[in-house]
Parts: sequence; C-alpha cells; structure tokens
Amino acid sequence: MTRYPEPLRRLMDAFLILPGIGRRTAERFAFSLLEGIPERTQQLSDALLGLHQQLILCGRCGQYSEKNPCLMCADTARNHQELYVVAASRDIFPLEQTGLCRGYYYVLGRLLNPLEGLHPEHLRTASLLARLKEGQVHEVILALNPNVEGDATALYLAHLLNPLNLKITRLARGLPTGARLEYADEATLKSAFLNRDAVPGQKNAGKN
Amino acid sequence: MTRYPEPLRRLMDAFLILPGIGRRTAERFAFSLLEGIPERTQQLSDALLGLHQQLILCGRCGQYSEKNPCLMCADTARNHQELYVVAASRDIFPLEQTGLCRGYYYVLGRLLNPLEGLHPEHLRTASLLARLKEGQVHEVILALNPNVEGDATALYLAHLLNPLNLKITRLARGLPTGARLEYADEATLKSAFLNRDAVPGQKNAGKN
Repeated sequence: MTRYPEPLRRLMDAFLILPGIGRRTAERFAFSLLEGIPERTQQLSDALLGLHQQLILCGRCGQYSEKNPCLMCADTARNHQELYVVAASRDIFPLEQTGLCRGYYYVLGRLLNPLEGLHPEHLRTASLLARLKEGQVHEVILALNPNVEGDATALYLAHLLNPLNLKITRLARGLPTGARLEYADEATLKSAFLNRDAVPGQKNAGKN
Repeated sequence: MTRYPEPLRRLMDAFLILPGIGRRTAERFAFSLLEGIPERTQQLSDALLGLHQQLILCGRCGQYSEKNPCLMCADTARNHQELYVVAASRDIFPLEQTGLCRGYYYVLGRLLNPLEGLHPEHLRTASLLARLKEGQVHEVILALNPNVEGDATALYLAHLLNPLNLKITRLARGLPTGARLEYADEATLKSAFLNRDAVPGQKNAGKN
C-alpha cells in the first residue's frame, strides 16, 4: 500500500480537527486545494494564522472581538435595559440577525454539564453579577441552547440572580418555523402545546 | 445588523473555497477553531502553506510528489508490463488501496470535455506515447471515471494508441458492491447485464 506524500497526509490530518470532517472529506479538501490556485490556499492559511492573533476577548461581554471593549459594548445607542446571556460568542450572531435584540450581550463561556466536569465555577458569573448590580439592566434574557445543559444553566442562573429582583426570561420553546407536525419530537410538541398562543384577531371574531 | 469581526469573516470566506462548503459550515468551522486549541489552527495553517511549497509533479507519471521521479516511478520492483492511465493524482490512491495494481501509473491531467473547452491537446499524451514506445508496457489499463468525459477520453485514447498494437483495457462497469438492485440506475444496470459473469463453480454443478 502506498501512502500519500507527507505534505498531503499532513494536511489531511490537520483537516480532521474541523467539526464533522472525516478522512474522506479531508482527502477531498486536500486534493481540491492541491489542484486549485495556490493563492487561495495561501489565503486560507493566512486567515487561519490571523484568527487567534487578531481576536481578543472583550472584557465586558466576553465575546471575541478585534477591540476591547468590542464594538457592541462600545455602542451606547443600544438598549441598556436588556441583557442577553448566551453560552458562546457564536450564539450572538444569529440573535443579532433577528434584528430584534437591541440590548447588550453577555457570554457565559460554558453551559453546566456535570458529567463533563463543567460546574457553576466554570461559568463567567462574577462579572455578570457585578454588571447587573450597576442597576441599568431591567431584564435578563437567557438565550441558552434548548437542551439539558441549557436548562440546567438557566435554572442555576435564575436561582443565582433571584435576589437582584430583575425580570428573568428565556427564549420560547415551540415548533420551529417551517417544521412539520408529524416529524416534531415529543418534547418540542409538549412545549408547543403548553406555550400555545391565542390566535390574533379572535376578539373581533364575527366582525371581520 | 452586526457583522463578524474581520479576522473571523476573512476565515469564513476563505473556507468557502473548499468543495461542498457553504456559509453555515464555514461559520461552524471558524467558531470551532476559534474556541479550540490555537496550536491546532496553527498546524492547519502550516500544512496548507506546505502543500504547494513541498509538492511537485513527477516528470514521469505526472502525479504530485515530494520527489522527482516519485517513489512509485522510482520503484523498479513494480510490474513494467502494466500502465494505469488515470485522470488525476487523486485517482491513484484508491487504485493502490485495492492491492491489485502492481504496475505503473500515468496521469493525463484532464478528461476530454469539449463543452468546457477541454480538447485532446489538453491531455498529457505526448509523453504517454513516448513512454509506450519504450516497449516495456504490454497492457494499458484506462482507469477513467465511468461518465461521459471518461468515456470520450477512453475512446480518444483507444484510437490514439491503436497503432502501437498494445492490449488496451478499461475498468469494468457493473453494480457497486453493497448496492441494491432496486436503486440502480438504468445505465449501470445495462452495463451489469451486458457484462454479466459466469457464476464460479457451475461446471461442477450436480457433483457437490
């Protein structure tokens, strides 16, 4: 059996660190780059190099940014009354895309997961408490993953923040838009049933 | 709408050159590296850099290699009578994995595709003819993709090599191992029917 040339094998191995990428896809990536324009490969290499060199953590919200404080925390035009608590930097961007989140963010860094050794002391809660005690925030919105870790973390935070007398909410659960009832899992369907909304306009029913 | 920090956006854009990778997966890759160990990202960056710097084309077979001639062409213990003609370097490794291909390889570089402007003059045929005229090769095995481009190229090569009076063969077509008849496409099934094999041992039927 012949092995790949060393530089090719080394690149295939390196691609395996990407999530969801197995050996076959890594091989495909490597050959595609090999047969492509060298400048593109160079660009990817440079971009990877710049990632950890150019990004730092914002001291206020904890997200990755080129500046400290980050552009969001430095933006005084946002709504100071709302604070969105997320697990990781990556969760901020989809929330921003909704165009509805006009307040500030706070990155916990982790979610509780006792089985993997992630306990309350691993969450960035000290500066969260300090920040809430500044008194500007009226509502803490827990935007955590709707799974066991997210639920455990939400419960823990609700308990921790309770003495501050703030409104604490979390993202609603229910059927995702575009889903089909027949494929919905039991937990989602239960949430959708329990959180059911009044159909708009029904007080005027019959008037039309 | 907030944009990603520049180094993150640049990396996401760079990932889009990989085959089959769209924006969502590029985002996932970038965040995974951002939250991972920086040394791993560095390794990937270095491996990318080394790809075009350390690999050259073997002057004899045309495959990517660290050396010229490549290790395969330099290996005198292989079978000089068989030459496997492939379209690209990437096609060599799966053939080697079979453990059956003990001869030498020859990389055409392209397959004919008149619609995309790939004509006979784009194939590496000059050195193929020169090599075959050395007289050591008895059989040319065309290991080309079983599609329109591969077929056109095989026909062209058969015509080109015909005056040399060599045995010219191509890889068999039929059902892939593990496939299910009900899902086989018509062209594959036609090939499988026309190339049907005698079931082994049937001359002894009844003896058992």
